[in-house]
Amino acid sequence: MATYVTLTELFQNRVESPTVRRLLLAGVEAFWRDGFHASSTRDIAKRAQLSPAAVYVHFKAKEDLLFDIILYVAEHLRNGLREAAAKGGSPAELLSRLVHAYVALPARMYKASLVANREFGSLTLSQRKQIVKIRDELEDIVGSCLAVGKSSAEFNFDDLSITRMAVVSLCRSTLLWYSPRGKYTPEEIGDYYVDLVLGMVGGKVAARQAPPAARLRAAG
Amino acid sequence: MATYVTLTELFQNRVESPTVRRLLLAGVEAFWRDGFHASSTRDIAKRAQLSPAAVYVHFKAKEDLLFDIILYVAEHLRNGLREAAAKGGSPAELLSRLVHAYVALPARMYKASLVANREFGSLTLSQRKQIVKIRDELEDIVGSCLAVGKSSAEFNFDDLSITRMAVVSLCRSTLLWYSPRGKYTPEEIGDYYVDLVLGMVGGKVAARQAPPAARLRAAG
Repeated sequence: MATYVTLTELFQNRVESPTVRRLLLAGVEAFWRDGFHASSTRDIAKRAQLSPAAVYVHFKAKEDLLFDIILYVAEHLRNGLREAAAKGGSPAELLSRLVHAYVALPARMYKASLVANREFGSLTLSQRKQIVKIRDELEDIVGSCLAVGKSSAEFNFDDLSITRMAVVSLCRSTLLWYSPRGKYTPEEIGDYYVDLVLGMVGGKVAARQAPPAARLRAAG
Repeated sequence: MATYVTLTELFQNRVESPTVRRLLLAGVEAFWRDGFHASSTRDIAKRAQLSPAAVYVHFKAKEDLLFDIILYVAEHLRNGLREAAAKGGSPAELLSRLVHAYVALPARMYKASLVANREFGSLTLSQRKQIVKIRDELEDIVGSCLAVGKSSAEFNFDDLSITRMAVVSLCRSTLLWYSPRGKYTPEEIGDYYVDLVLGMVGGKVAARQAPPAARLRAAG
């Protein structure tokens, strides 16, 4: 399955100014180590080897820097799930790609993803609303796939909303224990979770044993 | 399956002094609504309809009140899992009881359980060590059950440590969305998660279809 970009690569794709990229990376590192409230603009500037004044040239407040980090990470995951969804295939194939991305893509940038989870409450109300909208779309993408698989009987579970919440929570929970010093790469953990989730939704037999033609009929 | 006690009942069983019980309940309410750091001893005393001085008669510091809450909740869950484990049966039967308790028991006291998760970092180092020891035991109980089911081939998964972490994280994640105003009781959600987890570990067929004698042989 797919491999995923690092945080440095994500910022390179998204942010034109090298100075802003340095500030964003320094912000992730500071917020990850010390938390948002305990990190000063001065700390961040120092980590980025810039003057505190340079921070204010690019960000009105520390909150805006945090928001950009959380927004980029959330949009990146949303784009990953959109791409996974756009590829088509049977519900089990689609769910496999979604779970893989949902696990491995944030783990590739686990510091920023953890900051996004932990410091969500430090955003302003209007910032939180923008992020919630993106997170709702993530759940909708997973939910649509589960609904299609349930109605075609490729999946076998009773309650769509609990199952969707369980799948999404399980994917997100990997961030709580993932370590780059661990035994497995993000992509390997992603593969493993695909298997766990297919088991959860009763889609394992379909994905593993049915010939492709049967899978396509079931998905139709 | 089992039903579980409320927080009020837990404190009634554990704490002799009615004043201390009132303070603990007020602490849970305050920490749940405003967070540990934003809650003052005065707030807690007011909620318990006591004077601030009364708090200090029973707790040296706000931290000690938090610790008692987290300790009681953690020990209660540990006792629930120990009891579930002691009842014997096949690995699938045992895992079913463990998952049910791990989901429904904290949900029955979801405010205190959420406070315990969120405010763990506000404890002192030695307090955290005591709680980590209890949490490690929870993971060990689940892990032992998974190991037995794997070695008897009643369960079908590859990696014990990832699977254990996935099962435990999934159970814990219900607290992130559980609401007493939701469609299902904690015990119903527990039943549903038993099914999800048996699917995850490949134990569903064994639990549902094997006759009891075959299950006992597999567990032996």
